[in-house]
Amino acid sequence: MSKPRFDVIAIGNALVDVFTSCTDEDISRLGLNRGGMTLLDEARADELYNAMGPTTEKSGGSAANTLAGLAMLGLDCAFIGQVNDDQLGKIFTHDIRSIGIAFETEKLADGPETGRCLIFVTPDGERTMNTFLGAGQVLPAAALDEGMIADAAILYLEGYLWDPEEPRRAMRRAIEVARSAGRKVAFTASESFVIDRHGDDFRRMMDEGLIDILFVNEHELATLTGKSDFEESVAHVSAKVPVLVATRSERGAIAVANGERAEVAAEPIEKVVDTTGAGDQFAAGFLSGHARGAPLEECLKRGAIAAAEVISHYGPRPEADVSAMIAEKLG
Amino acid sequence: MSKPRFDVIAIGNALVDVFTSCTDEDISRLGLNRGGMTLLDEARADELYNAMGPTTEKSGGSAANTLAGLAMLGLDCAFIGQVNDDQLGKIFTHDIRSIGIAFETEKLADGPETGRCLIFVTPDGERTMNTFLGAGQVLPAAALDEGMIADAAILYLEGYLWDPEEPRRAMRRAIEVARSAGRKVAFTASESFVIDRHGDDFRRMMDEGLIDILFVNEHELATLTGKSDFEESVAHVSAKVPVLVATRSERGAIAVANGERAEVAAEPIEKVVDTTGAGDQFAAGFLSGHARGAPLEECLKRGAIAAAEVISHYGPRPEADVSAMIAEKLG
Repeated sequence: MSKPRFDVIAIGNALVDVFTSCTDEDISRLGLNRGGMTLLDEARADELYNAMGPTTEKSGGSAANTLAGLAMLGLDCAFIGQVNDDQLGKIFTHDIRSIGIAFETEKLADGPETGRCLIFVTPDGERTMNTFLGAGQVLPAAALDEGMIADAAILYLEGYLWDPEEPRRAMRRAIEVARSAGRKVAFTASESFVIDRHGDDFRRMMDEGLIDILFVNEHELATLTGKSDFEESVAHVSAKVPVLVATRSERGAIAVANGERAEVAAEPIEKVVDTTGAGDQFAAGFLSGHARGAPLEECLKRGAIAAAEVISHYGPRPEADVSAMIAEKLG
Repeated sequence: MSKPRFDVIAIGNALVDVFTSCTDEDISRLGLNRGGMTLLDEARADELYNAMGPTTEKSGGSAANTLAGLAMLGLDCAFIGQVNDDQLGKIFTHDIRSIGIAFETEKLADGPETGRCLIFVTPDGERTMNTFLGAGQVLPAAALDEGMIADAAILYLEGYLWDPEEPRRAMRRAIEVARSAGRKVAFTASESFVIDRHGDDFRRMMDEGLIDILFVNEHELATLTGKSDFEESVAHVSAKVPVLVATRSERGAIAVANGERAEVAAEPIEKVVDTTGAGDQFAAGFLSGHARGAPLEECLKRGAIAAAEVISHYGPRPEADVSAMIAEKLG
């Protein structure tokens, strides 16, 4: 098998994030799901946008954020996701290509607008996300460039995109393509509600050995296993996936890979400004090591450093030189 | 004369700012006019956007930024400016309305897209602006709500908008409406190139007593008078406008009002992050005092505090509570 052209190819929602700062009272008054991600229809998205203070727009999307982190750490990456041929779609496309990521999914000429995520950030830095998927809901399997998928060492999939039907079918097809080409499949669970709705799918895929690397936080892990005990859940899932990475916010993260276990503490930071992208960048840091065969503990450490950088500023993608930070901390 | 409904109504470019961080080498390589504002046609705007790294979008526009500062300081404000009925136009409209500013100019249904300003910020915090005016070039006099203009204590005009022909005619008409209603006219020179092109207009308006409050920086002042000596220029112009405010970057600012002169030093700040909006927010701080009859020195101090806030973060509009900062510093 020849060396693949890409280190990682990801399929995910192509979203533009719309940030505002708000108070805890705003979260209650607007009836938001504090710290979570809620899907919106267009009417509710408009209503909520009208209730927001002044905003800042930045490209987002969970898997796209992870990929941005990977590209900025020097990996060769490609992205598949659906935007409309509108101004937000142009912004998303510009930003992802500007860091060297191949992104060639054909834009929708009509139909739903490019999706966006309305993000309310409270003074403690917690982000409350409200997503209008827009064009993202209609990513068809026909939009997949199967040649690109077969030519990437790792296929990275976002759980959020498992919820709408058409993208779910596209992702199933992508997994087949990657497996046939002998590639690894990485999956991030994204959010407990996705597991609530599609847990049977995920458990079946794990049983069938279709997932090589699984990223979860502890809540998602509990939802996935139905067990409240963290260690029991880790033992259960790590018996089914070759690499399990479970993040625990300020309590750090653990990984189990083929029987070996490692842990890392959260990196100390001065002030949590905005937690948006913490999990995404943890995954980027981890994969940047894993893709190059780094020891498990180093992979975790890279994840913790990348997560600490992104929560110290507004926005879901790195702004500082994370490579330099990793080089300094790992010596 | 009844108390007007608005403290300030402004006419200006309705732009969305597109920020990126860059190096000094990028500025040279791309042939940019460091620290200045350059107008772009659409082809050059596309070329430059493609050359930018990942971006952040925030509503901007010089007069709109000043108005945002004023509204956030509690003044009743209205804005007139031209956007297209596109996604960037919706963002601009949302942001300005979200802080309580009346903005009712009818959106363009077709024609040029909403304008944007591509802003490159170097490590010293200096901003280099490159503007595609888009819809802003076609603001017709017919778009003016003359009743609103007559119902505002101060009409605030942006020099940038004096350059394209149609908005220039609209602004001339707006001045007539404001003068007939017995209102004051404030004018910000915006940039030396505007004075290079339209200095005769401005000098004639000053001679005719059409400008009550003039905001300039020292370069614009020198261009306006043709005199390199700052004090000579101040004496020359302050004889023609009732209130002259001249800013001098890190050397503070001076104001002369009906023979009285005051000065203020620049506010010390920890780090200049992004100078975008410094002049706009200085004008907001100054006018917030002037509109309420505050002493000249206090007006300048308010300007300096508002400018210091905006250059300590990315973006052209206040993010901290400038009212509280003013209350604390002025005691």
